[in-house]
Amino acid sequence: MSNSVNSGNTLQLGFVGLGRMGLNMVERLQKTGISCVAFDTSPEARTAAVRSGAGIAVSLNDLVSKLASPRAVWLMLPTAVVDEVLETLAPMLDAGDIVIDGGNSHYVADQRRAMSLATRQIHYVDVGVSGGVWGRERGYCQMIGGPDAACQYLEPVFRALAPGVQAAPRSSGRSGDPTPAELGYLHCGQNGAGHFVKMVHNGIEYGLMAAYAEGLNILHHANIGNIQQETNAETTPLEHPERYQYDFPLDDIVELWRRGSVIGSWLLDLTAIEMNEDRKLSHYTGRVSDSGEGRWTVLAATEEGVPAPVLTAALFGRFSSRGHDEFADKVMSAMRHGFGGHIEKATSDNR
Amino acid sequence: MSNSVNSGNTLQLGFVGLGRMGLNMVERLQKTGISCVAFDTSPEARTAAVRSGAGIAVSLNDLVSKLASPRAVWLMLPTAVVDEVLETLAPMLDAGDIVIDGGNSHYVADQRRAMSLATRQIHYVDVGVSGGVWGRERGYCQMIGGPDAACQYLEPVFRALAPGVQAAPRSSGRSGDPTPAELGYLHCGQNGAGHFVKMVHNGIEYGLMAAYAEGLNILHHANIGNIQQETNAETTPLEHPERYQYDFPLDDIVELWRRGSVIGSWLLDLTAIEMNEDRKLSHYTGRVSDSGEGRWTVLAATEEGVPAPVLTAALFGRFSSRGHDEFADKVMSAMRHGFGGHIEKATSDNR
Amino acid sequence: MSNSVNSGNTLQLGFVGLGRMGLNMVERLQKTGISCVAFDTSPEARTAAVRSGAGIAVSLNDLVSKLASPRAVWLMLPTAVVDEVLETLAPMLDAGDIVIDGGNSHYVADQRRAMSLATRQIHYVDVGVSGGVWGRERGYCQMIGGPDAACQYLEPVFRALAPGVQAAPRSSGRSGDPTPAELGYLHCGQNGAGHFVKMVHNGIEYGLMAAYAEGLNILHHANIGNIQQETNAETTPLEHPERYQYDFPLDDIVELWRRGSVIGSWLLDLTAIEMNEDRKLSHYTGRVSDSGEGRWTVLAATEEGVPAPVLTAALFGRFSSRGHDEFADKVMSAMRHGFGGHIEKATSDNR
Amino acid sequence: MSNSVNSGNTLQLGFVGLGRMGLNMVERLQKTGISCVAFDTSPEARTAAVRSGAGIAVSLNDLVSKLASPRAVWLMLPTAVVDEVLETLAPMLDAGDIVIDGGNSHYVADQRRAMSLATRQIHYVDVGVSGGVWGRERGYCQMIGGPDAACQYLEPVFRALAPGVQAAPRSSGRSGDPTPAELGYLHCGQNGAGHFVKMVHNGIEYGLMAAYAEGLNILHHANIGNIQQETNAETTPLEHPERYQYDFPLDDIVELWRRGSVIGSWLLDLTAIEMNEDRKLSHYTGRVSDSGEGRWTVLAATEEGVPAPVLTAALFGRFSSRGHDEFADKVMSAMRHGFGGHIEKATSDNR
Repeated sequence: MSNSVNSGNTLQLGFVGLGRMGLNMVERLQKTGISCVAFDTSPEARTAAVRSGAGIAVSLNDLVSKLASPRAVWLMLPTAVVDEVLETLAPMLDAGDIVIDGGNSHYVADQRRAMSLATRQIHYVDVGVSGGVWGRERGYCQMIGGPDAACQYLEPVFRALAPGVQAAPRSSGRSGDPTPAELGYLHCGQNGAGHFVKMVHNGIEYGLMAAYAEGLNILHHANIGNIQQETNAETTPLEHPERYQYDFPLDDIVELWRRGSVIGSWLLDLTAIEMNEDRKLSHYTGRVSDSGEGRWTVLAATEEGVPAPVLTAALFGRFSSRGHDEFADKVMSAMRHGFGGHIEKATSDNR
Repeated sequence: MSNSVNSGNTLQLGFVGLGRMGLNMVERLQKTGISCVAFDTSPEARTAAVRSGAGIAVSLNDLVSKLASPRAVWLMLPTAVVDEVLETLAPMLDAGDIVIDGGNSHYVADQRRAMSLATRQIHYVDVGVSGGVWGRERGYCQMIGGPDAACQYLEPVFRALAPGVQAAPRSSGRSGDPTPAELGYLHCGQNGAGHFVKMVHNGIEYGLMAAYAEGLNILHHANIGNIQQETNAETTPLEHPERYQYDFPLDDIVELWRRGSVIGSWLLDLTAIEMNEDRKLSHYTGRVSDSGEGRWTVLAATEEGVPAPVLTAALFGRFSSRGHDEFADKVMSAMRHGFGGHIEKATSDNR
Repeated sequence: MSNSVNSGNTLQLGFVGLGRMGLNMVERLQKTGISCVAFDTSPEARTAAVRSGAGIAVSLNDLVSKLASPRAVWLMLPTAVVDEVLETLAPMLDAGDIVIDGGNSHYVADQRRAMSLATRQIHYVDVGVSGGVWGRERGYCQMIGGPDAACQYLEPVFRALAPGVQAAPRSSGRSGDPTPAELGYLHCGQNGAGHFVKMVHNGIEYGLMAAYAEGLNILHHANIGNIQQETNAETTPLEHPERYQYDFPLDDIVELWRRGSVIGSWLLDLTAIEMNEDRKLSHYTGRVSDSGEGRWTVLAATEEGVPAPVLTAALFGRFSSRGHDEFADKVMSAMRHGFGGHIEKATSDNR
Repeated sequence: MSNSVNSGNTLQLGFVGLGRMGLNMVERLQKTGISCVAFDTSPEARTAAVRSGAGIAVSLNDLVSKLASPRAVWLMLPTAVVDEVLETLAPMLDAGDIVIDGGNSHYVADQRRAMSLATRQIHYVDVGVSGGVWGRERGYCQMIGGPDAACQYLEPVFRALAPGVQAAPRSSGRSGDPTPAELGYLHCGQNGAGHFVKMVHNGIEYGLMAAYAEGLNILHHANIGNIQQETNAETTPLEHPERYQYDFPLDDIVELWRRGSVIGSWLLDLTAIEMNEDRKLSHYTGRVSDSGEGRWTVLAATEEGVPAPVLTAALFGRFSSRGHDEFADKVMSAMRHGFGGHIEKATSDNR
């Protein structure tokens, strides 16, 4: 591989997994001249990929046979099935081939897989990909870990997927040819580095989302001074009802903050769009999923001995949104009954 | 007042408010030789007080007329009505009389009331009282704020209500006559000091309760490795299900920790009793009330510029237990939909 | 005032306070055709304002005399001196005049001031202004509270200061003439509404900043597996040193995240510039100030009964950065000594 | 082993590790009739053990040779060396022998070790021990995991170490012969269960300690209204200095809370003793160590998907006390400089 000179976008890429993210990525790659051979277990997904101009494989075997050496196969799969697919795929590959995991794997799994594949002289590259459903148009931010040579070999792919330098104004102090980071991809270090940085990226994302959400919730409740309260030992009296009589237009406020304020961001842009459709967000229930990276970020902080109270609070808020604090709450109610004879209040309690 | 020598338990006390706490306190006072004249707007409450041997008044006016000068009137009322009662009561009193607020007032209200009553030369004493429904037998821990002379005058009352030195082993380094603190009451400073210390006491209580509750919740969920999970991009896979296959006997564990462990406490004793009755605490819903002091503690920490992450997390957990995070959670779900097209999962999601 | 028709940018504005923010705002106003008469107690500040073309006043009296009725006076002052200035200024004004507080006042102070000025029929408008030192070029995001007529009268001022619709792509679902929110200013409600929204805006800002900071700190410590550790009962052994051997290029990573990632934001843009200058940020000590709004946000959340764990953790982190957790930490060390005989470790402990 | 009838306290126990905890435990065991053969690599430690009446071994080999079958060897070692010792010890043991780990191992290590030792038919029992330096007199609370037969065989040991039922009043609803939990030991489940419960126990301990520490810190700073403040945009003005003018006698307050209050606990008892010696705790620096269980508790909560904000805040506070938030704080200072031109304040800033 180290001898193969790859002239720009003539590189051929095998692509496994044509879900929400994968299909969009194949389309972007085809448009920018990276020739893909795509596979998914679902025939419908394969049909959709045909439209992008990609070659199609009907099995992993078929995929491998359609790629020239050294092969590069990009996996875009749910975390839970990557190991299984690798077990099937690895024996089909040759020394010098490259496997890329572009999904949301734990960086510890990357370290393990890289060592295992290295016994077959297969190179492993882990790529954390951010961009969501907007990536096809905006491009994808890519955080990359793995051996130097393999990462260099794949540069045309990374470049094709990346948003490019024009996606943001250049930082003062940056000039000359844009660096890869300025184009939107970066080789962050040895194996696992890509998903480690992506993990922290998502951990930060959880924190940012919760910050906006809490702030908007405070604005949402700024009218509680207008709500009649009970007077009993179980209810905290609102000392200054006159201070909380605002009915804030949340959709306009979110829109407002997008221009000139310190808290402008892409997440805020998306919130504005969502609130534009339904200011009360009444079609959401508020059960917020988490998909791994937030948890791993907390594990890493804890093992490093580094405080991460904001990122952790954000994660725990998601757990609570799904009711996982219920037993703890019952324990507290039981204690209150134990020392004070307090009886729980009915659910009509609005404060 | 400063000249009146009060010989031990011959002191007479007016007592207003015969609820859960008040009635128990009157009974304890009567038993220890403090003669009470008690009033409550509820005839049933007054009847109950008769059994304790206390004198009964049918109105504030009646109460005041039945007390010898200098009068001492102890209010044991819901926070929200103290000011209203004081407005009626104050004009009936004379210079040199004392009003004690033994309820859960904000110390800032104490500062205001003390200044206002001082214009009539009425002394105001704020007493934070801990002990709950167990206080009648165990005695009450009393945190006291107010002018020196008035606090000294009331010492027989404090002493009668206090648990006494035998309630806990004396600390090494403490010997000789027990100090008031060792008896269970303490003049903590000028007006507001009593309720300030009680406020922080309750803030700590919230933190302690949440610490136990969270720990027990972690034990409660230690069997999740046995629960079947879905495999999709919305669910974090449990990487090590074999690590979480414990069915812990929580009632026995709580009982266990009461003997010899570092985390033994009175709150744990009460939890053991509650869990003894119903290990699953299934008759509680988990809507945890808060009654003011926890909030005021957070306000004080914030105004002082002092971090209180544990006490605050405990308070916020109670807010969440009552659903007050709902709109924030909807905002996060909306954002996830915005960037990733994520659809919220149904409530059958158990993790 | 309600009858006065103000034709676009012919409005004249008195401006008090020519500090960091104020001077920039006067320059932007002058450029966009709002004629200012500016005052500051510092002669140097006044001289600087001359260059912008603004008229200059040498005293509040002088300022008032140079403005035509109805007068509009914008205060851009440290929170702590606003009331003092208002006390001097108010008696110089006439019924129908308007005072605008563009500083960082607490919304509760706005409510009080508005009521007080209303007794003189002076209108009070509170404006939360975001934009920092970049506002002169980018424009200022303005959150406005106050009576309708006064706010309408001031629209040319708000419009002149605002960034304008082109400052961000229009949200899908927004079309036609841009609304004020899309231009970058919004009348959010009655008095106090402007600073309430600004307060929450800053609360969110604290949360966002801490989210990035914690994430970068986790990346910063990702090399701890390379650091030799002691083996004793006081040190947690790092179970998997091989997992933490990354030396991440933080400056490049921050730059990377600016393009295509979910966490792109203006705060991230600024961080990239700062890290470009000094990747290790070694000229900062890490004592992080807070200037009021973060605290008030926590107070509001607490009084509303709304959980805000992320915003609060961010605030408390600032308190800790200034050493305000020291006594609490001593208490914990004392307890550890008490139950386990643990001796504190020397400061050479790196984990 | 299952056939061996062990008549009460005739059981013989090998004991490895005579540090702070180990020596005390051997002394307690000897006193209650459990015959120990003790080993430590330090000759001084062995000499100390002689005084307790225990037999002494000069090597692991020697220890094993001095024990009758089935052997039971209790390890009381720093977590980091247990595996190493086991590697040496296991080959010396026979089928049916028992190894007990009484240290602070991670329950995941227990699961691994139990499986590994089972291949030699050696039984492994994990025991979480609480009690600290006070355990010799008070007895030790023991949380036990492992196979039924081995745990039953060891009951005389557990009973000898346990505090006994009289260590706390029996819970209402508990009568008849005290259960093991009431004596102070409990077989909590299969291997790892003992250290899992101990892990959570310590996690709770962190939370309790932080709750007291934060509360006392709030009391400690209740005099900030007396401290002169600067007036500038970098300092939050204290709006109500009159509210914070208390000089609280913390030592007396801690003593006070020990009697009759809801927050009485053993940790509070210890705090009272410490504060009695030095009310200002000035011989502590406030660098608070953590020794593993707190971290593992957070990991377990995170993997279970259970919110633990209080326990986590307590852990992170310890990390911060050792300066591990420094880089995060620098990032925030850099951002503040970036958007507002803010310069960090000197360390003389007291708020």
